[in-house]
Amino acid sequence: MNDTLHNDDDYTALVKDLALKGRAAQRLLARATDEQKAEGLRQAAKAIRAQADAILAANAEDLAAGEARGLSPAMLDRLKLDKDRLEGIASAVENVASLPDPVGEVISSSEAPAGMVLERRRIPIGLIGIIYESRPNVTVDAAALCLRSGNAALLRGGSEAIHSNKALHAAFTEGLEAAGLPAEAIQLMPTQDRAAVGAMLKAAGLVDMIVPRGGKGLVERVQNDARVPVLAHLDGICHTYIHASADPAMAKQIAVNAKMRRTGICGAMETLLIDTNFPAAADVLDALADAGCELRGNARAQAIDSRVKPASDEDWDTEYLAAVLSVAVVDGIDEAMEHIAEHSSGHTEAIIAADEAAAQRFLDEVDSAIVMHNASSQFADGGEFGLGAEIGIATGRLHARGPVALEGLTTYKWQVRGQGQARP
Amino acid sequence: MNDTLHNDDDYTALVKDLALKGRAAQRLLARATDEQKAEGLRQAAKAIRAQADAILAANAEDLAAGEARGLSPAMLDRLKLDKDRLEGIASAVENVASLPDPVGEVISSSEAPAGMVLERRRIPIGLIGIIYESRPNVTVDAAALCLRSGNAALLRGGSEAIHSNKALHAAFTEGLEAAGLPAEAIQLMPTQDRAAVGAMLKAAGLVDMIVPRGGKGLVERVQNDARVPVLAHLDGICHTYIHASADPAMAKQIAVNAKMRRTGICGAMETLLIDTNFPAAADVLDALADAGCELRGNARAQAIDSRVKPASDEDWDTEYLAAVLSVAVVDGIDEAMEHIAEHSSGHTEAIIAADEAAAQRFLDEVDSAIVMHNASSQFADGGEFGLGAEIGIATGRLHARGPVALEGLTTYKWQVRGQGQARP
Repeated sequence: MNDTLHNDDDYTALVKDLALKGRAAQRLLARATDEQKAEGLRQAAKAIRAQADAILAANAEDLAAGEARGLSPAMLDRLKLDKDRLEGIASAVENVASLPDPVGEVISSSEAPAGMVLERRRIPIGLIGIIYESRPNVTVDAAALCLRSGNAALLRGGSEAIHSNKALHAAFTEGLEAAGLPAEAIQLMPTQDRAAVGAMLKAAGLVDMIVPRGGKGLVERVQNDARVPVLAHLDGICHTYIHASADPAMAKQIAVNAKMRRTGICGAMETLLIDTNFPAAADVLDALADAGCELRGNARAQAIDSRVKPASDEDWDTEYLAAVLSVAVVDGIDEAMEHIAEHSSGHTEAIIAADEAAAQRFLDEVDSAIVMHNASSQFADGGEFGLGAEIGIATGRLHARGPVALEGLTTYKWQVRGQGQARP
Repeated sequence: MNDTLHNDDDYTALVKDLALKGRAAQRLLARATDEQKAEGLRQAAKAIRAQADAILAANAEDLAAGEARGLSPAMLDRLKLDKDRLEGIASAVENVASLPDPVGEVISSSEAPAGMVLERRRIPIGLIGIIYESRPNVTVDAAALCLRSGNAALLRGGSEAIHSNKALHAAFTEGLEAAGLPAEAIQLMPTQDRAAVGAMLKAAGLVDMIVPRGGKGLVERVQNDARVPVLAHLDGICHTYIHASADPAMAKQIAVNAKMRRTGICGAMETLLIDTNFPAAADVLDALADAGCELRGNARAQAIDSRVKPASDEDWDTEYLAAVLSVAVVDGIDEAMEHIAEHSSGHTEAIIAADEAAAQRFLDEVDSAIVMHNASSQFADGGEFGLGAEIGIATGRLHARGPVALEGLTTYKWQVRGQGQARP
């Protein structure tokens, strides 16, 4: 394939060809019943289990190539599949099959002044482009969510996982075909050339939405270059504010959990704001430092614990994704909310407070996709929200916000039923 | 102002300054009650009536300048205000005041597996940019819809209406202030330079959404250049399909209405598809020709009525916005839906049929923002849908589709109420 692709026009033509095939398959999928789509996913899970040996052999090829290229142990771990992980992937597909089909739901219905019956009905978005990095499970997770919601997918994974992705994709689409669904509903980009990604991002009218799954560099490139709508978040600079009224034990437990449970996820706390009237600030900072967290703070935070180093201006806008935390002591909820308005990335912010009125103000006035009261920001996740799975977390203001699951992969149309009305 | 703006950086800085003021005002507005916002709109209507003389004098300036510049009579008519039109503008504002406030609505609520209470609550989008052409009423209509839904607006009208827009804007914001709301919630771009529009379109993170209101040239430029999400439609190539089972009298009445009631609106029919088994095709074409409609058709349509001229390939993709219609005789609903899938702009398509199963297939399978059964596509309008008003009609697939009213000007956030949960 690469031999024949020489310039941008070739990649544009390739993406157009793939997109038209995907769109044709999506039109068939849009007519499939709930049960057909569920059966397709169950067959896909079955095929993944049946082809475990081939998938693991393909993965071993990727791992060997990755080691030869000097990938870090963390990267190799993200890439690695084994029997357990593969079973996890297959059962995740079955879990998506068990989720309710969002398509066809009547979102609202009413009668027009002229007497027509109006219904807004949920429909699939169309063809979703997924651009992701090394984790091969994304191939299957994204395919399953798209299929459950009646969408076609064009998948473009990282080159380091190419053999694993091809093997998983082959099994998945074999399952679809076994259930009588079109294999072209889920396509894998046949080239790893970066120009093909550029062509996907520009394919407005052919690709309906792009979901980038990966690090900040990937998301930033996609957001900058895309002419197609993108659902994603760039940063997760999540704040937790400990109000004066917070229960000290709860504040300590949540602060340590929000920062230290897993430091590398987007819902991890990056900045702790402590009310100057909260009596147990020293205890909270002590617990964080004891848990191995580096603390960087304003002068008032440094005055509480000598282990707090001075924070630079940059620290307040940094997503560390590591055991490092910015800490500021603030004068009340207004200063806390001002700090958040200035530095938040709009992902998740939390307040710890016994005072319900303060908590309500925070929930109402902080303008992030997710606002929490008395809970750890590490809960910012579609699974933890009971959505069954998620395609990602979005911080944009249009369409879906926060954890995006099946409903976020749908749009609607107006169905209008008249009795012969002509407009006066 | 123009004296000091020399390059793109200056316009970027101007837009940033306006956007930050607008966003600050929007945060105040987000805390305003339903009743405060309604009162602001009633005061705005009152101020428009009170300042009628000044507004009409400003409009006379624009009209004189427009005549001197040789604007067409149609353009001058769009620009013109008089007592009646001004009263229409003021009462439209009162009508928006009477619509229910969408902000705060709980879209869904559930309990997370870990016990937190989750609510998705409707919130304003933020700062909306409105870019429009000569009609001065858009200044007030758009401002009223944005304000009712808790959004700030940055308005950029056409230079030919600048005096009218300034006078209307002054009255509107005086009304807001009389109700204790921030005047900067509704700002008018202080320069007519086109570079300022370019800066608005690029202001991602400062302007949350752009709504272009105007002709195809304007919408196309906005869609091509914007880095901010755009809610709009480019074309309204609306199809009506007369099924074999259609009631002949209904088919004739709806076809003539859909094309000829007003030919210049986006919901006007541009292509008529007639089933080869519909027995009264000649009668329908006769009525259209008698009503003064030029007909361009395929060979099978030409065979029915000698007044049908041959259609070119381009005709099937043309939004005439005039008394011209493309007509094709097709072999059944599948061919009709294939034609629509190939040529539709995704705005509004209608089927005329007595056969309910055929109608249901059409409603389910045609993928446009609005699909109609036994009604004229001229009903594609927020007011006709009972939404009270509309900011526009959108054919994109994300966020709001079809007529966009107050709900389309909102987004949501997740409010999460815990009892101290740390994530296991």
